Amino acid sequence: MDTQEVVRLPKLSRVAVCGGTHGNELSGVFLVKELLKSKQGEDRNSPILVLSNPEATQRCLRYLDVDLNRCFSRDALNSPLSDSPPYEVLRSRELNTLLGPKGSADSVDFVCDLHNTTANMGLCFIAYSDSDWISLHIFRHLQRCLPEISMRYINFNLPPDEAYSLDSVGKHGFAMEIGPQPHGVVRSNIYTTMKTAVQHMLDWIHLFNSGTVFEGGLVDVFTLVKHVDYPRDCKTHDIVAAIHPELQDKDFCLLNPGDPVFQTFSGETTFYDGNESLYPFFINECAYYEKGIAFSLSRKRCLNVPAVQSQRNQSNEL
Amino acid sequence: MDTQEVVRLPKLSRVAVCGGTHGNELSGVFLVKELLKSKQGEDRNSPILVLSNPEATQRCLRYLDVDLNRCFSRDALNSPLSDSPPYEVLRSRELNTLLGPKGSADSVDFVCDLHNTTANMGLCFIAYSDSDWISLHIFRHLQRCLPEISMRYINFNLPPDEAYSLDSVGKHGFAMEIGPQPHGVVRSNIYTTMKTAVQHMLDWIHLFNSGTVFEGGLVDVFTLVKHVDYPRDCKTHDIVAAIHPELQDKDFCLLNPGDPVFQTFSGETTFYDGNESLYPFFINECAYYEKGIAFSLSRKRCLNVPAVQSQRNQSNEL
Repeated sequence: MDTQEVVRLPKLSRVAVCGGTHGNELSGVFLVKELLKSKQGEDRNSPILVLSNPEATQRCLRYLDVDLNRCFSRDALNSPLSDSPPYEVLRSRELNTLLGPKGSADSVDFVCDLHNTTANMGLCFIAYSDSDWISLHIFRHLQRCLPEISMRYINFNLPPDEAYSLDSVGKHGFAMEIGPQPHGVVRSNIYTTMKTAVQHMLDWIHLFNSGTVFEGGLVDVFTLVKHVDYPRDCKTHDIVAAIHPELQDKDFCLLNPGDPVFQTFSGETTFYDGNESLYPFFINECAYYEKGIAFSLSRKRCLNVPAVQSQRNQSNEL
Repeated sequence: MDTQEVVRLPKLSRVAVCGGTHGNELSGVFLVKELLKSKQGEDRNSPILVLSNPEATQRCLRYLDVDLNRCFSRDALNSPLSDSPPYEVLRSRELNTLLGPKGSADSVDFVCDLHNTTANMGLCFIAYSDSDWISLHIFRHLQRCLPEISMRYINFNLPPDEAYSLDSVGKHGFAMEIGPQPHGVVRSNIYTTMKTAVQHMLDWIHLFNSGTVFEGGLVDVFTLVKHVDYPRDCKTHDIVAAIHPELQDKDFCLLNPGDPVFQTFSGETTFYDGNESLYPFFINECAYYEKGIAFSLSRKRCLNVPAVQSQRNQSNEL
């Protein structure tokens, strides 16, 4: 080891891997089912495996009533329940009991929530901060283990209380988002990438818990700046354009002012009118039509991540 | 013209273009909406434009209760209604009134029903016979006009009474199926291909109605042989494998006995155990998981299509 200062962090004793938070994102659904099947003699190193939204998974829908993966902010988890609460609101509280309570000492140490996107995003970690050294080190580890996979780290830059997705229930965690894959479809290559990535992630956690020192280094992080909606008809609110062919599938390729962004259904091109070059992602994600997001824009920064090692003075030594 | 015998066929006076028969196949939805908008001064050459399943389109679902595009066999259209019939059963009868009645002299002359698939099928005509010279000639016309587009003619080989899809309500017609596009997503390139193809189809109909002679020639036709389901768990009926990476996206590439077809979620490969080389299509189509179809297999034949011209002795000369 070099002379870097090593940051010592608590071990990751309780780890959860979740799939089917969106019931039609099938890589995570089938991977969690497969891991449940192959989980022979359970040991304390095994992750907690969760099928997050079994009802939506059963029907191959994103959700029944409301988007489960928007139900985990502190306010959403703690607001009074209505007389007939949406299924996913009830389910979010069950999951918070199982894996949380969010923000408490009892919450699990680490949550990886598995997702798919129709966007051409490769493998992305989606987190809320750029200083979760655990997530950033796992990212670096996967980059080393899977150099053939396009991989990015996205920071949504929200305080933990406002973080709204399932992975925010753990002390550390991220959504692992892999695409492109149509919702309701499983593609073998995407499934295999996810399976391999989860295995490498669990390997890293095992090494970390065993006392391995992980050297620091540089990581590119894409921080969300804003979302951009489709052009819409002001009366019907119908979209009136699709993503321009020159932007489609170009996630994480720098978008410059004046570049084409949409092509209307009558054939006209519209152009990016921002004044800063930014990196687009979630380009033409199926589930975001209803959220008013045609693509999101991010700024890229290079972070210096410190070396880490697990703390020695814990009762639950492995 | 050469010395070919010219088959004389009735003019195509009433033509329908339908979209949204599956409410989450968005190219057709947005194309029909766009055509409705741009339909300024209607004239008698304009097609009838139909949004087939407005409720499913509104909710971006394939269907609400049952698959509308399986409701148009003679039996389905004529069986007694239950007390609370599924929405799509009612809607199929409205459409049969509008465009049919199927099999009668009053039915429209031609129906083009617009669809998308998640499979890598390019542009396909899906018809029930290999002797509808009108559809085959339109196909040849599109091949000439759009040489850069992969284009195939699929024959499901069913008698008209048993033909179950909306296009079977017309005297001639086909489904125009374009992919790959995730359901619930519109991709500009797929939309533009569909728009251009529909325009060329209407151009051909106009030329045909105007008396143009279209020379005969050869057309490759893929005739459905059988469907192949995913390997499934015998208890849960869950699929236990995905399409093999070597088969995924290889629609219309010859599948030989012994070629890999599935990869199980635990990593094993299974192989094609048929004894005839056949052409696969609808590989990994999202909507067919529930129908028990992982892919379909077809035999390719080369057909000789005769020259055609519209009959002269009609009252509705254009």
